[in-house]
Amino acid sequence: MRIVKVPLERRSYQIQIGAGLLKQLGRECARLKLGRRCAIISDRNVAPLYAKRAARSLAQAGFTPFLLTVPAGETAKRLKTVHICYDRLAARRLERNSFIVAMGGGVVGDLAGFVAATYLRGIPFVQVPTTLLAQVDSSVGGKVGVNLKAGKNLVGAFYQPRLVLCDLTTLASLPTREYRSGLAEVIKYGIIRDQALFRTLEREMQKLLRRDPKTLTEIIARCCQIKAEVVGADEAEGGLRAILNFGHTIGHALEAISHYGKYLHGEAIAIGQVAAARLSRNLSGLADVEVSRIAVLLRRAGLPTELNLPATQKPELLRAMALDKKVRDGEIKFVLARKIGKVEIGQRVPNDVLRQLLSNDKTLQK
Amino acid sequence: MRIVKVPLERRSYQIQIGAGLLKQLGRECARLKLGRRCAIISDRNVAPLYAKRAARSLAQAGFTPFLLTVPAGETAKRLKTVHICYDRLAARRLERNSFIVAMGGGVVGDLAGFVAATYLRGIPFVQVPTTLLAQVDSSVGGKVGVNLKAGKNLVGAFYQPRLVLCDLTTLASLPTREYRSGLAEVIKYGIIRDQALFRTLEREMQKLLRRDPKTLTEIIARCCQIKAEVVGADEAEGGLRAILNFGHTIGHALEAISHYGKYLHGEAIAIGQVAAARLSRNLSGLADVEVSRIAVLLRRAGLPTELNLPATQKPELLRAMALDKKVRDGEIKFVLARKIGKVEIGQRVPNDVLRQLLSNDKTLQK
Repeated sequence: MRIVKVPLERRSYQIQIGAGLLKQLGRECARLKLGRRCAIISDRNVAPLYAKRAARSLAQAGFTPFLLTVPAGETAKRLKTVHICYDRLAARRLERNSFIVAMGGGVVGDLAGFVAATYLRGIPFVQVPTTLLAQVDSSVGGKVGVNLKAGKNLVGAFYQPRLVLCDLTTLASLPTREYRSGLAEVIKYGIIRDQALFRTLEREMQKLLRRDPKTLTEIIARCCQIKAEVVGADEAEGGLRAILNFGHTIGHALEAISHYGKYLHGEAIAIGQVAAARLSRNLSGLADVEVSRIAVLLRRAGLPTELNLPATQKPELLRAMALDKKVRDGEIKFVLARKIGKVEIGQRVPNDVLRQLLSNDKTLQK
Repeated sequence: MRIVKVPLERRSYQIQIGAGLLKQLGRECARLKLGRRCAIISDRNVAPLYAKRAARSLAQAGFTPFLLTVPAGETAKRLKTVHICYDRLAARRLERNSFIVAMGGGVVGDLAGFVAATYLRGIPFVQVPTTLLAQVDSSVGGKVGVNLKAGKNLVGAFYQPRLVLCDLTTLASLPTREYRSGLAEVIKYGIIRDQALFRTLEREMQKLLRRDPKTLTEIIARCCQIKAEVVGADEAEGGLRAILNFGHTIGHALEAISHYGKYLHGEAIAIGQVAAARLSRNLSGLADVEVSRIAVLLRRAGLPTELNLPATQKPELLRAMALDKKVRDGEIKFVLARKIGKVEIGQRVPNDVLRQLLSNDKTLQK
């Protein structure tokens, strides 16, 4: 097992990473002195696989858990589901020292975390991410929320969990496409902050694709370490934290215009990262060879890297980007790379360069 | 004009109290360096009276405000209204540095504050309370939220405004019953923290009922000062802040079982305060004469002080109290008074004493 600490003073917490950790859930919650009543919020895919194991562990440690199952998939991440959760928590008389266990992928973590952040003005919650994407990214750092029709994650809070428990055995049941989607975020950490991690990924991609537990433990721990450092330095996304959005401006917009149906999040940001790398070549001096290494590694992870948008959707994509939460005074800011391992936030990208990128101009394509 | 500071480190803010301050709203927002776009959230009673004045002041200072009107009354304080607000803000492209002006009574402040706390994971907001209740209580301290069917304020956040601007001239349009409801919270501050304030209220009640601006400025400033001290010492209601709930355990339950229709908040807590005073006589040594002074002052303010519940509703009231957010492990805790100016939190009230109180037992009645 590996432990990564997220340093946020009174709100500091641990990320525990290892195989079979789920059976220690109850003991860990007891160590945190959480109240007796708790809700396990999970979805229809994950609950049948792991809810019993979680509930048993909690019950053995003296807690009285109940299971609250929500629909699977991004469409569950909306206010209607939040409202249903509130009503169920109130019906079960959850109190201020009661807590929520969010067990599932990013959708469940974001949704259940937002419910925890706002029910009774905030009750404790524990993340038990069961997808690679959630383990390396969404479960850590306290960003919680739901989508509006107008865009993804437009409603939410910064609200830290009390513990993140990554049980690697839960990754065994993850469909290949979902697993690969998680690798897009793993590769991102190499690009934004850690050249050595990027090289390790180039070397170990085969083992990683086989989901080798030892390799996974080390890689996930390193990704969480990077995220913890970044979040510790800038919890509310005032500056540094924005580097985590490398590839996300275009990625989010792509998800939005395809109505969160066509692409998984990791697939969209794989395309977004290659696009951002190409913009970086033009605007912040990223070397040709590094643009190639980024595209090649993402492809080796089985991820898409090209936009391939029909001409009619291009203006739509630009409009969706303009709705990004990080827009200030109408200007879209990008995270661009200088080299693998080093990125810069708040970079202006002239509109014509953006349009050129979208028009698949060969001077921007690789 | 009087200025009270709420000391919360990086999130500190001012409460400004005076006649005609609304016309300085734009200038004050400019001083805070808020973004250009903003939404004035108000209700159908208040918007026709003051929205133009607020919008003009903001526009003159270079902002581009738009008005978002919600229905008046407690029933607007629900998730459905929150959802409508989110959609409107997204349609108007409000960004992270855009802000919300909450203009109205407690309902508007709580609702708009919760929208501000959660839209884009939190954007700045300014409180412009237009009722006495909101000026002395709900607009200060960062408690924001909405009701569920299961109970009042069960969903929300602790989220501080950037400024509270109390324009006394807006009180002129307040219906008598609403104004008196605000006096219940004013009197509460005397009971929980300030014997001198309580004596001033006994002396100046006639002037206060006439809404004399000079008296009002001093009294409102003193109430805000007390609230600011309490909130500054305990923002997230870990301890001291609970003193603000004197009279609220029974008051909230009474509002809940009458479906927020029969009593205004101040009326319910006036009854709740007298009930708490009677419990205090039995359980924490509050003198008979002080129980009387509390009941008399509330009555002089034109407020109800007796429960007068039909027998069938009494068990309902007890059940509603058990759903209070401050319940821990099923035990209801009360704020009780030792004397006027000094209260104690976390007091156990045995169930039979509570039932006795509700049964109008003469040993508890005054």
